[in-house]
Amino acid sequence: MPRNDALAGLARDRLADLTLVLDLVRSGEAVTRPELGRRSGLGRTLITQCVIDLIESGLLEEADFGPSTGGRAPRQLRFRAEAGHVLVVELGATSISVGLTDLSGALVAHREEPGSVTDGPETTMRRIGELLDGLLTERGASAPPVWGVGIGVPGPVEFRTGRPTAPPIMPGWDGFPVRQRLAERYDVPVWVDNEVNLMALGELRAGLGRGVRDFVFVKIGTGIGAGLISAGRLHRGAQGCAGDVGHIAVLDDKAIVCRCGNTGCLEALAGGAALARDGLIAATDGRSRFLAQLVSEGTPVDARAIAWAAEHGDPVSVDLLNRSGRLVGDMLATLVNFFNPSLILIGGGVAASGDQFLAAIRQAVYARSLPLATRELRVARSPLGDRAGLRGAGFMVTDELFSHELLGAWLGNGSPAGRPELVAG
Amino acid sequence: MPRNDALAGLARDRLADLTLVLDLVRSGEAVTRPELGRRSGLGRTLITQCVIDLIESGLLEEADFGPSTGGRAPRQLRFRAEAGHVLVVELGATSISVGLTDLSGALVAHREEPGSVTDGPETTMRRIGELLDGLLTERGASAPPVWGVGIGVPGPVEFRTGRPTAPPIMPGWDGFPVRQRLAERYDVPVWVDNEVNLMALGELRAGLGRGVRDFVFVKIGTGIGAGLISAGRLHRGAQGCAGDVGHIAVLDDKAIVCRCGNTGCLEALAGGAALARDGLIAATDGRSRFLAQLVSEGTPVDARAIAWAAEHGDPVSVDLLNRSGRLVGDMLATLVNFFNPSLILIGGGVAASGDQFLAAIRQAVYARSLPLATRELRVARSPLGDRAGLRGAGFMVTDELFSHELLGAWLGNGSPAGRPELVAG
Repeated sequence: MPRNDALAGLARDRLADLTLVLDLVRSGEAVTRPELGRRSGLGRTLITQCVIDLIESGLLEEADFGPSTGGRAPRQLRFRAEAGHVLVVELGATSISVGLTDLSGALVAHREEPGSVTDGPETTMRRIGELLDGLLTERGASAPPVWGVGIGVPGPVEFRTGRPTAPPIMPGWDGFPVRQRLAERYDVPVWVDNEVNLMALGELRAGLGRGVRDFVFVKIGTGIGAGLISAGRLHRGAQGCAGDVGHIAVLDDKAIVCRCGNTGCLEALAGGAALARDGLIAATDGRSRFLAQLVSEGTPVDARAIAWAAEHGDPVSVDLLNRSGRLVGDMLATLVNFFNPSLILIGGGVAASGDQFLAAIRQAVYARSLPLATRELRVARSPLGDRAGLRGAGFMVTDELFSHELLGAWLGNGSPAGRPELVAG
Repeated sequence: MPRNDALAGLARDRLADLTLVLDLVRSGEAVTRPELGRRSGLGRTLITQCVIDLIESGLLEEADFGPSTGGRAPRQLRFRAEAGHVLVVELGATSISVGLTDLSGALVAHREEPGSVTDGPETTMRRIGELLDGLLTERGASAPPVWGVGIGVPGPVEFRTGRPTAPPIMPGWDGFPVRQRLAERYDVPVWVDNEVNLMALGELRAGLGRGVRDFVFVKIGTGIGAGLISAGRLHRGAQGCAGDVGHIAVLDDKAIVCRCGNTGCLEALAGGAALARDGLIAATDGRSRFLAQLVSEGTPVDARAIAWAAEHGDPVSVDLLNRSGRLVGDMLATLVNFFNPSLILIGGGVAASGDQFLAAIRQAVYARSLPLATRELRVARSPLGDRAGLRGAGFMVTDELFSHELLGAWLGNGSPAGRPELVAG
């Protein structure tokens, strides 16, 4: 059953113009008819007709008068973000987050609980469905219809089909029809991507990445991954596994074997699991009294605990964080020379643990990258933190919903069901 | 004086539609009016009007009848690539190439001569002007007007202003107004980019990169650089220096200092200059009789000579090429994990020298990249060879000329001079 009948009334032969006008108002780039004319290059009659169509569809409405520029003040237009809701999911290695956004990507409600992706797709997808249904029930009877679902998973995804492809830490998920399951349950279009890509998208639209054309988001949690923004758009790569930086070789160290089977991988030497492993060794062999004390109190020796110990003067913990940050920074220096971003955002549990780690990353990046590439390079902590992924999932859905191509399919068929590949995966 | 008055007649309020229709015919994606309707989502009346406008402007013409699909066979449309010429230049570290392309990017004429970029911008730009004037003179009186100039230079370029920015091997060129000089001389819009970016663009449109959305072009000549294609478009990076992979640290070798001042740089260990240096040492210290023989004959020991020696059984030369290829391959393995391309194209003088080098690169890439990222990864030699840069310069110009934005500026002002930043840099 189509949830967006409003759109079916839009004139098909105005498609490119309608998308353009809608995008300009949605993004806030042009909110009056004269501004729309200037920014779009379309004539007055055409702008007027597009605005009428979009108001009738319920996507735009008349708002306050804008500032006058001489003559009569032009009426402002407003994108009706409240016309629909989007269901969003962020599946981490050890957690499930769900939420609701409006059509502007603003988070309306959200929930988070522990959950292991290694429980397999059937168990995990069932729990995701229960959590989403819970959110829908709480919304009340007057809530707007759901227009789409967006979900991020902790592994590579073939974006076109919405299926994970050979995800290393998601046993049983290879090729699993994530899109199809959610589309069958909610009867709306579904998009699936890697969770770190969605964090990068969240920061691009609502965080420090706003207006930044080229940046890299690095998540340092148990594992290490990156999301790439190229010229204001996600770079997903040929198999959807761009940003898989955890298994880049950073040291010729044969002693520690990574979960991927190789040695010398960044993740096995500098990720959260590596920090916890080395911290526990330092607690046990008597090198760090701070960490030994934590262990005796039953506190787990994780990145947060090591950061606490470093802040309270434990030299071993300072060394551990420095070493980890330097390895991440060396890898990033290579990427800076290759990709030339103007911003590197660091997110994930290890990054949230303290300043020592970020300082070590910065030092390594600036020491080894080319001067031109670092001239305007900023290295900062992710401001959206653990909301970045859910926000990104919402933006992914609205971007696709209001794209030229999909809007066209809707107008042609009156329903998202007219695009079987979107609901069936 | 505007050279493209034809465009000034196009209706301004049909801008988005005109660009769309022109792009579909130019790219060959849709060449009949019914196809244009299906691909563009525009109505029949609108398509008819756009086609009339574009035929009147001289950009399209009626061609043969297409295959019938039941009713009357539809008339095909043809993009009039011969309506204009584009001047193209590729400035290498030690050579100057110039050429003429038509509006489809096909190379009509070209010349190449030795020339050192270290002679400085005044001398080099004067010589480029003389070579281009020579090509224009040879065209004859009935030649079409020149619509634009495209030039590639061997260093980072701020694409927006058309100026080199801190180019390491171009002394005197930092901030030099390359665009302005050429625009003043030819009175048409000018675009400037890094030469390796243009090689990647050339391969994207006319080489093995056709239809490939994500690939990396690596030029291995005296130095080493890369051009990145993300989702079918050039990724230039924040300062235009994306792909500057020659100075990525690949070994902890403090003995050889790179021209950038750092140690362990890929270029200083594996580029053409490094091969020549190590080859000469092997010839002098008696390790390689093959190379010593070449030296005694007065043949320079460059990558080509080392490849010849390797093919004729010189174990030292085989080792040199293997070592160089392995270092390049290790760097590429990192980039494969980060960028996830489906194609790596190897170009430049060293790559052209023989198979030994390419084989070593391949082996290293496949050994160290993640299995998913290499599942459909192809590593091949650039098919366009030393034409890739000139072809790319032509495509850069036609892409920009027929972009929504510039076409709009022309229609508004009747002349490219209406965009001062394009002709003045």
